[in-house]
Amino acid sequence: MKKIINDPTAVVDEMLAGLSYMHDQLVYRVDGTDVIARRLPKTGKVGLVSGGGSGHEPSHAGFVGDGMLSAAVCGAVFTSPTPDQVLAAIKEADEGAGVFLIIKNYSGDIMNFEMAQDMAEMEGIEVASVVVDDDIAVEDSLYTQGRRGVAGTIFVHKILGNAARAGKSLAEIKELADRLVAQIHTVGLALSGATVPEVGKPGFELSDDEIEFGIGIHGEPGYRKEKMQPSHELAKELTEKLLSSFEAKAGEHFALLINGMGATPLMEQYVFANDVASLLKEAGVEVLYKKLGNYMTSIDMAGLSLTLLKLTDEEWLDALNSPVTTVAW
Amino acid sequence: MKKIINDPTAVVDEMLAGLSYMHDQLVYRVDGTDVIARRLPKTGKVGLVSGGGSGHEPSHAGFVGDGMLSAAVCGAVFTSPTPDQVLAAIKEADEGAGVFLIIKNYSGDIMNFEMAQDMAEMEGIEVASVVVDDDIAVEDSLYTQGRRGVAGTIFVHKILGNAARAGKSLAEIKELADRLVAQIHTVGLALSGATVPEVGKPGFELSDDEIEFGIGIHGEPGYRKEKMQPSHELAKELTEKLLSSFEAKAGEHFALLINGMGATPLMEQYVFANDVASLLKEAGVEVLYKKLGNYMTSIDMAGLSLTLLKLTDEEWLDALNSPVTTVAW
Repeated sequence: MKKIINDPTAVVDEMLAGLSYMHDQLVYRVDGTDVIARRLPKTGKVGLVSGGGSGHEPSHAGFVGDGMLSAAVCGAVFTSPTPDQVLAAIKEADEGAGVFLIIKNYSGDIMNFEMAQDMAEMEGIEVASVVVDDDIAVEDSLYTQGRRGVAGTIFVHKILGNAARAGKSLAEIKELADRLVAQIHTVGLALSGATVPEVGKPGFELSDDEIEFGIGIHGEPGYRKEKMQPSHELAKELTEKLLSSFEAKAGEHFALLINGMGATPLMEQYVFANDVASLLKEAGVEVLYKKLGNYMTSIDMAGLSLTLLKLTDEEWLDALNSPVTTVAW
Repeated sequence: MKKIINDPTAVVDEMLAGLSYMHDQLVYRVDGTDVIARRLPKTGKVGLVSGGGSGHEPSHAGFVGDGMLSAAVCGAVFTSPTPDQVLAAIKEADEGAGVFLIIKNYSGDIMNFEMAQDMAEMEGIEVASVVVDDDIAVEDSLYTQGRRGVAGTIFVHKILGNAARAGKSLAEIKELADRLVAQIHTVGLALSGATVPEVGKPGFELSDDEIEFGIGIHGEPGYRKEKMQPSHELAKELTEKLLSSFEAKAGEHFALLINGMGATPLMEQYVFANDVASLLKEAGVEVLYKKLGNYMTSIDMAGLSLTLLKLTDEEWLDALNSPVTTVAW
């Protein structure tokens, strides 16, 4: 393992120190916690909290700011944050109108976020939540019952963030979140495994000419290993899988996210995007919003994921386009 | 080589097709060229053009937009764009008040940009330019006489872009550019080499426990190979080298850029940032602007660079903070 770190057990602490130093005009680290919160006056609106294990940077701290998250809670690498840390984030995000939690579907996250929700409610803070399960690759997985929560989560941050900024109530945000999450599907592929600093070697190995479809953002098994193929074949596999999961029809409206896993250069992401563009055009669907880059990474994994959000509510497009002040959107 | 591409010889063409598809609300590809230009009405201001070999994404096309570049010209991977391509960018950027070229210091770039400048002037477009040579690692190098132009170039894009948007004349921008470039110093390090798709293997190799200080963004040799060290030792080497190159004194004002080379996760960049922060604090210098991420990459190289800009003109800070509409700033 050759990584720019000091002590493998101190990586998250030092990362958050560096992050809060570099972006101190936008965010701060809540004293004594692994919570990153936004520097904004509280105006009595619903607070929005997300988080999970670290190693997915810029998720989720990079999406803290005006128009997106109020706070992000950062667990150890690939490890759910503890309930007391989640509670600290809820308290920091609370402006008096309740706090909404965006949880990716991992058993540990759900348990710890729900425990924190109970603790917050005992302290008089109203809390609601949604579980994001956009990864259509596999049902049930290491760490997960049902589908995993992956890159599509950033669309949830953005659209719910816009609703919270607009002053929607906790109940309105819950109703929106449930409708939204049902319309987001993602599927990814990996060229290499990710190395957790405390482990020191990749979580899985692929040979020099091998890829894996449907891999999770913690290296959870996908649905098929194959020989490496040209980008247009990879794009065909992922795009067709997504379109078929939506039973997509010509003329339907979608938002598109191409997400790099950490070590995949933009060069490759754009080549892949060009292939996806042809396939979506062939299918006749209309892509009204597009985003590409490293948003939900898996440390140093090479690979990418493809997300489609079906725009069944026309307000979602405005929400995606609304300006925000964050480090990473 | 395991890369998400189709034909290694078509990578730049397909990348630009993908880029102009994904970001079609902000930029477009000029027909029949490898030039990316911004979608903005022309208002008679100075046009700003940069570019160079591809492989440094998001540089430079990611900085095309309101308040930054008018157009970027994209050569083959690690290869200077041809004079006719640079000329196409100049013509696209021209709004009638002249065009200013931001050139990184590589012999091929200088030759081709200057040839294009001559051609444009013969067509009646006034052109001026600056050569960015911020890399203090080595004097002269593969492809370069003097110092190389590297990540500090994005500060030049930003500050000159703000001046052009404010309606400054070509002569004023030239005067500003010369003062600015003299105050930007960068030095980097690599953990691994970059693989050009048409070559198929890394341009250089480092062993599993080895790093190289002062490496260039095309893998040009640095100034010393050493055993891998903790982040705080790496930060010490680079920070002290930069501070000493400025003969920096306590109380002086700087802008800071930590730049990932492509395959280095944000996690490591933030850990490194935390170590740099301590060293800058110890030195007593004041850091008034900070930026971190993958801005001037070297395809899939693991490594990073550290840039300091000495803020000898207080307007530069406003320029750095001014809002822009680009893909990557």
